[in-house]
Amino acid sequence: MPVNFIPTPRESLLPVQGISLGVAEANIKKAGRKDLLVIAIEDDAAVAAVFTQNRFCAAPVIIAREHLASGKPIRALVINTGNANAGTGEEGLSRARAVCRELSALIACTPTQVLPFSTGVIMEPLPVEKITAGLPWCVNHLGKGDWFDAAQAIMTTDIVPKAFSKQVSIAGQTATITGIAKGSGMIHPNMATMLGFIATDAAIAPDALQAMLRHAVAHSFNCITVDGDTSTNDACVLIATGQGGARVSSASGDDYAALRDAVTEVAANLAQAIVRDGEGATKFITIHIEGGKSEAECRTIAYAIAHSPLVKTAFFASDPNLGRILAAIGYAGIDDLDVSKVQLYLGDVLVAEKGGRAASYREQEGQRVMKESEIVVRVVLNRGAACATVWTCDFSYDYVKINAEYRS
Amino acid sequence: MPVNFIPTPRESLLPVQGISLGVAEANIKKAGRKDLLVIAIEDDAAVAAVFTQNRFCAAPVIIAREHLASGKPIRALVINTGNANAGTGEEGLSRARAVCRELSALIACTPTQVLPFSTGVIMEPLPVEKITAGLPWCVNHLGKGDWFDAAQAIMTTDIVPKAFSKQVSIAGQTATITGIAKGSGMIHPNMATMLGFIATDAAIAPDALQAMLRHAVAHSFNCITVDGDTSTNDACVLIATGQGGARVSSASGDDYAALRDAVTEVAANLAQAIVRDGEGATKFITIHIEGGKSEAECRTIAYAIAHSPLVKTAFFASDPNLGRILAAIGYAGIDDLDVSKVQLYLGDVLVAEKGGRAASYREQEGQRVMKESEIVVRVVLNRGAACATVWTCDFSYDYVKINAEYRS
Repeated sequence: MPVNFIPTPRESLLPVQGISLGVAEANIKKAGRKDLLVIAIEDDAAVAAVFTQNRFCAAPVIIAREHLASGKPIRALVINTGNANAGTGEEGLSRARAVCRELSALIACTPTQVLPFSTGVIMEPLPVEKITAGLPWCVNHLGKGDWFDAAQAIMTTDIVPKAFSKQVSIAGQTATITGIAKGSGMIHPNMATMLGFIATDAAIAPDALQAMLRHAVAHSFNCITVDGDTSTNDACVLIATGQGGARVSSASGDDYAALRDAVTEVAANLAQAIVRDGEGATKFITIHIEGGKSEAECRTIAYAIAHSPLVKTAFFASDPNLGRILAAIGYAGIDDLDVSKVQLYLGDVLVAEKGGRAASYREQEGQRVMKESEIVVRVVLNRGAACATVWTCDFSYDYVKINAEYRS
Repeated sequence: MPVNFIPTPRESLLPVQGISLGVAEANIKKAGRKDLLVIAIEDDAAVAAVFTQNRFCAAPVIIAREHLASGKPIRALVINTGNANAGTGEEGLSRARAVCRELSALIACTPTQVLPFSTGVIMEPLPVEKITAGLPWCVNHLGKGDWFDAAQAIMTTDIVPKAFSKQVSIAGQTATITGIAKGSGMIHPNMATMLGFIATDAAIAPDALQAMLRHAVAHSFNCITVDGDTSTNDACVLIATGQGGARVSSASGDDYAALRDAVTEVAANLAQAIVRDGEGATKFITIHIEGGKSEAECRTIAYAIAHSPLVKTAFFASDPNLGRILAAIGYAGIDDLDVSKVQLYLGDVLVAEKGGRAASYREQEGQRVMKESEIVVRVVLNRGAACATVWTCDFSYDYVKINAEYRS
């Protein structure tokens, strides 16, 4: 079960003026589950997006980039689960285009005004007939929407739907922000997570919106890892409909900062939900590196710890086998790291300093922290002022089970 | 159990003239098991060594480097299992020195003529009294030796001892080479493996010997990974006693090449034995990348595949979920990789090309190869002439079990 995940109740998810949602059961991989989502966007909205850096990026990622670059206003997103349409070559591109064409006919726009997204198994042909057969249901049932249903419709190995809402006051006007995300395995986002969709009713210019999304992603989806595998389908979209009263006029100033921080909070909440629902996860681990020369080196060390199977299995076992963390710091590739200056804390307990175990450290203190389900690992490098935080989970029997049986 | 591991019978392990071995049960971590080894070297031998690049390198690694740099002929190696003496700060250094001092007194040399090696749990104090209490037994029982016993005395989570012998003719004289190694987890050697000790009775100058060791390690221990964790204690030593008739006069020419290739064969055999005995391994996987621009990019892609938990769990399940391999190729970080040119073969089966599944591919063909216990993954990049090979194993429930319970 997800680690200390507090679901947002359906009734707490706020509609976003200018956004309609439609969900269908299209039998894409399994019968009787929601697996197709249309997010319709009223005219004059600004849409920003970031995508995976994986070279084997999926066909929908290529098409979505193409359609965004065409410069026409985006009128709809279409998202299917059950099939990633990745590693599918030319045929995959034409199938993703067919889905956009079909939806554009139903909502009276051009195909380039539709962005496609897919998630699920890689290297299988997209069942385009099932998707197009499901689209009329989505379009006929478009409504201000049940974001909870929408979050359910994009799940793969996720146990829980992930959705979050927030309101913030901008110059006396309320801006509403609601977002959904999915992801549980193949999680080491590089520019974006598996799939995240966030909408606000505030008005903001496209350039400022894109800057805001980059900031939000850098402090949320790009700070998490489950297994170190960067997906072929990562994408995160931020939509600003401008249909509420709030307006942000540029990419700086107090109004911008207020909206940016609220969007970032929604994104961070969704990103952490992905880790809490990480495949087989039993613990939620925050890795905070401070006193580094640069944020980059802090992130490198944090990810070395977060990706180590030995560290992750020790967390699973609640075993304070903390030498494994020192080893990961040591092999992270920081050539001039002076290990005699490094301090390692587990929760509030100083574990190691001066190249070895701290004189004050007692095994039962480490054991106490390791038994908790929320653990903070803090590493002080004592060589600069930079810091970075990464969120991850442990590595359990169930991770192996889930991924050994994924396609069966 | 190890994957298709063919043990070298005790009687096939050849003594190396000029080398004596002594093994003791010193109760370092558990009672009743061989855990201490002394390798005594007669005068005039050349000794080459390579060590881990982990910044948190262990105390014995620091001391061994120091003693090698002192330039005095090395007279003995002392290796304990059960404790890595890593992450132990100043106290760890003085304990490693105490072990060298004690052994040097017993064999009448100076402490700098002794190289110490440790393997086992990290960040626990080295039980130096138990080791020094065991040394007299080792020294009193030194003999031409049982290399099989020696291999057993350095095991940690290894299921099988790893040892191999080979003879090669150099200008009409026979050179004998025998080596042992240990390792099963925390295996992603960076310049050397956990621990490897190889001896030959050939005569060769120290500089040529060091070059030979670098070559052998680059084509053996530096081509393997179990879990991507680079150890704090990696070390590999090559000893040339010069007590047989074979002589190699320089670091080039046919004689050098003959001895180098034989040493490399011993090292590769030991390195592959480590992967076959990888923690929880059920399959032995060879990943061969060809058609790359450089060997470095081929190795980067090979390791991205070999480290992916998703790829490794799919191998464990015999599930040809081969999109996971494409994803790993895609996120390996080769920015200008044209994925439409990449070909992926599983055994003799062409799986993917032109950015997607090959038209000729049939799932049952992939299934057939995945069910085997020896699997070759071949990736053709079609952008150059370089290649690289990495050996790894799958990721099973038992890997999690072994590492969750390691200290209990």
